[in-house]
Amino acid sequence: MAVLKAKLYLLLEATPRNTRGQRAFDLLLVGLILGNVLAVILGSVHTIETEYQTLFVAFELLSVALFTLELLLRLWVSDLSENGSAGLSRRRFWFNPYTWTDILAVAPFYLGFLISMDLRLLRLLRLFRVFRISPYFRSLALLGSVIKQEYRPMLSALSVIIILMLFAAGGIYLLEREGQPEAFGDLPPSLWWVVVTLSTVGYGDAVPLTWLGRTLGAVIMLLGVGMVALPAGMLASRFSQVMHRQQNLFRRLVEQNIEAGNPVSEAMLEPHRIELFISRTEARSIIANCIEESQRPLNFCPECGSRLPGHRTA
Amino acid sequence: MAVLKAKLYLLLEATPRNTRGQRAFDLLLVGLILGNVLAVILGSVHTIETEYQTLFVAFELLSVALFTLELLLRLWVSDLSENGSAGLSRRRFWFNPYTWTDILAVAPFYLGFLISMDLRLLRLLRLFRVFRISPYFRSLALLGSVIKQEYRPMLSALSVIIILMLFAAGGIYLLEREGQPEAFGDLPPSLWWVVVTLSTVGYGDAVPLTWLGRTLGAVIMLLGVGMVALPAGMLASRFSQVMHRQQNLFRRLVEQNIEAGNPVSEAMLEPHRIELFISRTEARSIIANCIEESQRPLNFCPECGSRLPGHRTA
Amino acid sequence: MAVLKAKLYLLLEATPRNTRGQRAFDLLLVGLILGNVLAVILGSVHTIETEYQTLFVAFELLSVALFTLELLLRLWVSDLSENGSAGLSRRRFWFNPYTWTDILAVAPFYLGFLISMDLRLLRLLRLFRVFRISPYFRSLALLGSVIKQEYRPMLSALSVIIILMLFAAGGIYLLEREGQPEAFGDLPPSLWWVVVTLSTVGYGDAVPLTWLGRTLGAVIMLLGVGMVALPAGMLASRFSQVMHRQQNLFRRLVEQNIEAGNPVSEAMLEPHRIELFISRTEARSIIANCIEESQRPLNFCPECGSRLPGHRTA
Amino acid sequence: MAVLKAKLYLLLEATPRNTRGQRAFDLLLVGLILGNVLAVILGSVHTIETEYQTLFVAFELLSVALFTLELLLRLWVSDLSENGSAGLSRRRFWFNPYTWTDILAVAPFYLGFLISMDLRLLRLLRLFRVFRISPYFRSLALLGSVIKQEYRPMLSALSVIIILMLFAAGGIYLLEREGQPEAFGDLPPSLWWVVVTLSTVGYGDAVPLTWLGRTLGAVIMLLGVGMVALPAGMLASRFSQVMHRQQNLFRRLVEQNIEAGNPVSEAMLEPHRIELFISRTEARSIIANCIEESQRPLNFCPECGSRLPGHRTA
Repeated sequence: MAVLKAKLYLLLEATPRNTRGQRAFDLLLVGLILGNVLAVILGSVHTIETEYQTLFVAFELLSVALFTLELLLRLWVSDLSENGSAGLSRRRFWFNPYTWTDILAVAPFYLGFLISMDLRLLRLLRLFRVFRISPYFRSLALLGSVIKQEYRPMLSALSVIIILMLFAAGGIYLLEREGQPEAFGDLPPSLWWVVVTLSTVGYGDAVPLTWLGRTLGAVIMLLGVGMVALPAGMLASRFSQVMHRQQNLFRRLVEQNIEAGNPVSEAMLEPHRIELFISRTEARSIIANCIEESQRPLNFCPECGSRLPGHRTA
Repeated sequence: MAVLKAKLYLLLEATPRNTRGQRAFDLLLVGLILGNVLAVILGSVHTIETEYQTLFVAFELLSVALFTLELLLRLWVSDLSENGSAGLSRRRFWFNPYTWTDILAVAPFYLGFLISMDLRLLRLLRLFRVFRISPYFRSLALLGSVIKQEYRPMLSALSVIIILMLFAAGGIYLLEREGQPEAFGDLPPSLWWVVVTLSTVGYGDAVPLTWLGRTLGAVIMLLGVGMVALPAGMLASRFSQVMHRQQNLFRRLVEQNIEAGNPVSEAMLEPHRIELFISRTEARSIIANCIEESQRPLNFCPECGSRLPGHRTA
Repeated sequence: MAVLKAKLYLLLEATPRNTRGQRAFDLLLVGLILGNVLAVILGSVHTIETEYQTLFVAFELLSVALFTLELLLRLWVSDLSENGSAGLSRRRFWFNPYTWTDILAVAPFYLGFLISMDLRLLRLLRLFRVFRISPYFRSLALLGSVIKQEYRPMLSALSVIIILMLFAAGGIYLLEREGQPEAFGDLPPSLWWVVVTLSTVGYGDAVPLTWLGRTLGAVIMLLGVGMVALPAGMLASRFSQVMHRQQNLFRRLVEQNIEAGNPVSEAMLEPHRIELFISRTEARSIIANCIEESQRPLNFCPECGSRLPGHRTA
Repeated sequence: MAVLKAKLYLLLEATPRNTRGQRAFDLLLVGLILGNVLAVILGSVHTIETEYQTLFVAFELLSVALFTLELLLRLWVSDLSENGSAGLSRRRFWFNPYTWTDILAVAPFYLGFLISMDLRLLRLLRLFRVFRISPYFRSLALLGSVIKQEYRPMLSALSVIIILMLFAAGGIYLLEREGQPEAFGDLPPSLWWVVVTLSTVGYGDAVPLTWLGRTLGAVIMLLGVGMVALPAGMLASRFSQVMHRQQNLFRRLVEQNIEAGNPVSEAMLEPHRIELFISRTEARSIIANCIEESQRPLNFCPECGSRLPGHRTA
């Protein structure tokens, strides 16, 4: 029993997920989740749902059964862990947000037996299962950490945008409310127009018609459009910067090992690779590159290729 | 009385705003301002205003009273300051733009007693109170200084865009004015179409129908769309560059202190932290990082993580 | 015969394509391909096709003849190559994707004799000929290699976007399905609205009308618009970074040759120029710049122009 | 007479334009050009033109007279120049594109006497006068030189976009032509839809309705939108990079002068300032900064603020 439990722990929870069994299990889970998302989307279309009702019900029963089984097994092995006591790992299990997205995804089905309610809406809760996929994308965690670091300037850019929007809405409300009372007669629809315009979505459901209104609109578009793109631009440049630094830190580790005369292998660097959010292919090419570099004298920045000072050979 | 005045000065004006009282006061003010903005927006909707009229009036009376009180108290303590004479600080009070946004926000209410006019429009002036929130966002000031530095290339990009727009408007006017005299019959509506198109808002209120017009439109979209995004892109890349430099300057300060053997504490670096627009969390992590770095030999660029020349140990 | 075959190989396949004959042939091919693309586009318009039918047929016969001839000649010379056996180069010919776009472009015409089917649709296959142009653009290959390197973070950004979209679609479906059952009554049309909105295209065919729906829409626009622009921003910054590095690597090569006392000429560096995706003009200016630089003492970074340490003359 | 001619040359053509007279003249010219642009725009509106016809005619006569006078004076002094023979400078005058925009702007008026034609359209030619303003924006020339440098990768990105568009148009044509023959029945309108969609303008004049068409549309939006933003992103990042380098080169010049013990003054560096496209304010702050820097030991990169190697004092 204990052996089975340990094996299950390895299959379900252990990281890094390198063995064949772990990969097969993860793939199956991702497939099941994507299938569920598709079922929720297609099942919302009335004509499709009525035609293939038995198929939808069968797939729902199957997937609820599998998700419940997985949840129960995870609960069972949750007291095992690489380090720390059994109590600590079980507590960690209950505080893990993924546990709760799992419960949220399965709960509506069982709730249906207790209380009678509109189950169609609750099926949307199954979309939360999609979050189970996200840990399989490594750089997503990196993106999260960049947002965490950059949230301050982004917030302040957002606050400038919102102040700008308030005044734009006030202006267009003054200029257009008489001509088009249904689209600009109050501040809330004016704000809706401002958001639709500044985000450059431009549905065309509300368009200024007076010349003063159009002039204000043109100014808003020319000056404001950039403002809204600012946070995204900041995030993008920062993200690729951080990605770059992670790669350099990994390269540094490899170089230190080479310099210390240690044998350098992929397996040895695996934990660092995972910690630094670096993909298997990148890691391999960095290692190969470092070994090659270590054999010729360094007089160019390995980073940007520019000449380094004090290394002029001639 | 003098003690009360000094205490009020500390509560209302003194920087840095670290004490519990100051923070509570700032939070209350931000809440009151956001409440006022919401009241102006919702109060502009006729159906909401008539239903909750007493509530709106009560909230207006309360907030006008509080803002007036705050303004008067600020006026009272305006002759106190950390450095400089009483006259100088009072003059600084009157030249402070925030003082005038405060007055502008309160004035309409009192003006209503003197002259009878459409108060609904003047309520929009209360939106100016929102500027009172902006000083609470540190990086907003940084954004302002970046715009100030970069305004020249942005202006020139804008002037290219405007010249491009004039010719695009002239072209579409020639090609489409016969088929659609109401949308492209004069230059001003053609310009409106050009602005709506180049900013990628694209309401769809005016669309070229002839094939020559559509070809010109396609060329404008493919070549011009980038032009409009240019100033924003420049600003974004510059902003994150400056943010980065500020952090490096702070790091440099910390390192100099460590090297000089001075004890390094957050409190000591507080004025520099504020001057360099660095958040409390960032400052803390930089200090911790520097202390850690000072204990091991430096042979990698702390900036981008790339190897530094002349430090090869092997 | 063997001489003719060798000459044909030089004309059709040999790289680098520097001789006058090769350039003339390439230009002719590009012209023919662009002509075909235009013919397919214009030929799809019924009124144009019926009026100029003979012209279209004549151009089709001519271009099919020329493309077939080229394909057969390429097949004939495919056993010649600079290095490797005849068998290997012939195999390489059949595994070259360009060979298959060529066959795909010509095949529909010959298929028309065997089976009778709607030829109009198959004419679209001729658009594949356009891929034959792409190898003539060097930096396109560079762009491809950057996308290959950066596909991981882009994929993860895309996966965040898709998860965000699923929840946005779920939300708008809940809020708007009662008021507008034809636009938001199922999840698929809600997803269509989300994609149209987040990409800032904003056709305006579906627009939320309730205030809760509009609030959700505004939040989606402000937060999500940046997300969609993220992969592009990352790609752009990475692309110009790589372009930069390639130039630096070329500069390094030139400098090493200068330092070693080798004579530096364009012809000598030609293979490196091609390998590093550098244009002829850039290469020329880098070489000239390096020769000039080699005559005065280096104490500024050739990369960013900033002062280099340890070179202070005073 | 020769004295007057020399004075006129100074006023009209000599660079740098520092004296009071030159500045007043330039400002007057810019004002006159902007006035003309406004007159062309407003004059195209029928109702405004008929109401203020005399005003428009008077302003046109005045501006044509002034522009003709300026052109004749420039022609008169065109044989004077700082260096080179009279013949060379006159030839340079005739090959200057600004001369031709001037002639183009004035010509329609005189042509009206010779041949009778629709003068309203020719008035659009007067928009070309706006190019006379552009030399007054220094960084515009810098932008031009960046575009010149980066045109290759931008062109290749554009060619990828156009290939992508051809296939997108082919796909949507196949999927939507039966349901909406007027919007997607031929390839040209399908291409129009693709351009409008990929540029994120999204007028909404043509929208796919079938589910396969919408799926293709969603894929195009998610993958293609970034592609279109790519050239702009590349240009933006490159432009701020070049701006930065120019500033560094100027800083380098100042530092070299300081190190050589030369007195450093703004006037002395004026020609370099202009050549490097640096604004007066920037130059001043760089000079001040260099003088200050020269008095304390350098152990941090003046560029990005990061620590420099080999300068650890402790």
